Amino acid sequence: MIENDIFLRVLRGEATERPPVWLMRQAGRILPQYRAVRESLSGFVELVKSPELVSEVTIQPVDELGVDAAILFSDILVIPEAMGLPYELIEQKGPYFPRTLKNIEDVIALDSGKIAADRLSYVYEAIKITKKNLANRVPLIGFAGAPFTLLCYMVEGKGSKTFSQAKKFLYTQPEAAHLLLDKITEATIAYLHNKIEAGVDAVQIFDSWAGSLDHETYNTFCIPYLQRISDALMPKVPVILFCKGAWFSLKELHGIGSSALGIDWNTEPHFVRSITGPSKVLQGNLDPCVLYADHSFIRKTTIEMIQSFGGHHIVNLGHGVYPDTPLDGVKAFVETIKTYRY
Amino acid sequence: MIENDIFLRVLRGEATERPPVWLMRQAGRILPQYRAVRESLSGFVELVKSPELVSEVTIQPVDELGVDAAILFSDILVIPEAMGLPYELIEQKGPYFPRTLKNIEDVIALDSGKIAADRLSYVYEAIKITKKNLANRVPLIGFAGAPFTLLCYMVEGKGSKTFSQAKKFLYTQPEAAHLLLDKITEATIAYLHNKIEAGVDAVQIFDSWAGSLDHETYNTFCIPYLQRISDALMPKVPVILFCKGAWFSLKELHGIGSSALGIDWNTEPHFVRSITGPSKVLQGNLDPCVLYADHSFIRKTTIEMIQSFGGHHIVNLGHGVYPDTPLDGVKAFVETIKTYRY
Repeated sequence: MIENDIFLRVLRGEATERPPVWLMRQAGRILPQYRAVRESLSGFVELVKSPELVSEVTIQPVDELGVDAAILFSDILVIPEAMGLPYELIEQKGPYFPRTLKNIEDVIALDSGKIAADRLSYVYEAIKITKKNLANRVPLIGFAGAPFTLLCYMVEGKGSKTFSQAKKFLYTQPEAAHLLLDKITEATIAYLHNKIEAGVDAVQIFDSWAGSLDHETYNTFCIPYLQRISDALMPKVPVILFCKGAWFSLKELHGIGSSALGIDWNTEPHFVRSITGPSKVLQGNLDPCVLYADHSFIRKTTIEMIQSFGGHHIVNLGHGVYPDTPLDGVKAFVETIKTYRY
Repeated sequence: MIENDIFLRVLRGEATERPPVWLMRQAGRILPQYRAVRESLSGFVELVKSPELVSEVTIQPVDELGVDAAILFSDILVIPEAMGLPYELIEQKGPYFPRTLKNIEDVIALDSGKIAADRLSYVYEAIKITKKNLANRVPLIGFAGAPFTLLCYMVEGKGSKTFSQAKKFLYTQPEAAHLLLDKITEATIAYLHNKIEAGVDAVQIFDSWAGSLDHETYNTFCIPYLQRISDALMPKVPVILFCKGAWFSLKELHGIGSSALGIDWNTEPHFVRSITGPSKVLQGNLDPCVLYADHSFIRKTTIEMIQSFGGHHIVNLGHGVYPDTPLDGVKAFVETIKTYRY
């Protein structure tokens, strides 16, 4: 069905001639085509809610970069909004929630499950349009934030270096925290089921602030919810877990049994392989800053990275591509992988 | 000489009846006495440059909390300023450098070594006053930023979640980066020699942004400079290296041979011990957010932490104490350690 299905073949555990490649935030400011669309609008949230434009920016990196998968342009914070906690995106500053969660009553008042998920019809509409426009050239990935990362924003109300207020919520109101994580989990499962229904071929869960916790706290407040999400979706599509900075919980993350684990550039492949064995599918992990360097350095570093994973590997960065990355550096990176042979 | 020298005894490798304790940022906003001093001044930088007041706030946590060491109240960014790159501290936002380093010419223009270090006479004056006022009750720690962390601020110009511009400097101008790291190293060694001369009993190096790099990059741009600093100072006083997030380079950090390694709460003692062996002195590593919790949880978590280190351990948090931490939570933490017996 899908012309270039190398990404899905690797997720199924098959051996391929080279690793597939896509980039987190590939649909974004690195592309002049994206910036043109973005400048015609009042804001990021307007773009997220415009299915035709979402489809356009989702497909741009497939045309321009030749990546092996598209990822639906969206935002992890649509789930808190659908649960009843609206947000704004302030230019140069990031997300901002005018209202935040303070106690268990605030959590009880939130919607969850299908009620919340069904409010995001603009996302499902965008998937249908994108699948049609992609015309089966490459698979389409859908994504969601992990429950803990969404809790961080819903309690803290904005980005933070430490998320100390969100973590304070875990330590001082564990009952409210578990109820919130449960409700986010249910909304996320319903949301991703709708996304799969609409046509996505795989899903990725982003636990962006995983690295702010320790092993025991991650086991208590994160692993069980990731397990539920993975269990609910794995029968239908491959699931990739990207828990940034959670090297200390790799054993438990591997134990969840998802299709693949994303890793960041701190976490060396040989360390991960010592925990997961050689056949777990891993995704990552070039430092996005390498793409600022000259092309010979990009090529050399990329090839060394591919070799260090030893197969069962989807190439990506260890973080979203930075907006000021030179486009020709990104192209040199993608080209290196597409011409590589194991 | 020093009445309570348990901190220095552990740094010398001796077995003690309990671990010593101090907290990063113990001289700060958690103490009402500090807030009173701070409110009488126009800004943080004014406080840093007032030796009598520095002495006062440095000793406050010894009186109020009963910690086993004082740490001279100061700022890692006095070194960039002494090298010719002034900064401001903007309330609620953090450090800001009006001028940043763009290329090797900017680096060549900086001062270094004794010329830079001798400009910081207000620090040495503060040490002399503090040592006199402390009257040998506990040891006094002096500190400095690690060369890479100072480079981050000097290139990026302000705090950042990614320090992508600073890292871009490493990847695109490695020669300028090494020259800068060399000059910072020389200024830092001269500065810490002056501090030791003025009376500090131990020094700690903070590599706050270590975790933004990968293993190979850390080996290239950080380890050699930390080695030089440690080698220059170890004959005179104990040296503690706290390279936050650099779990991937623990083997090399251990290899430097400093008196102790600080670790954060991501990094479990049994993991560190598997690299360093049982007799390396380790410092850390409670998540500062635990101090928001109720006292029974603080006590339980602190005791479990002490037991997991298995001796040769200085208790601290895995990060500076957060300004809104309840004072009675901090006191419960310190009390737990001071009444603990191995």
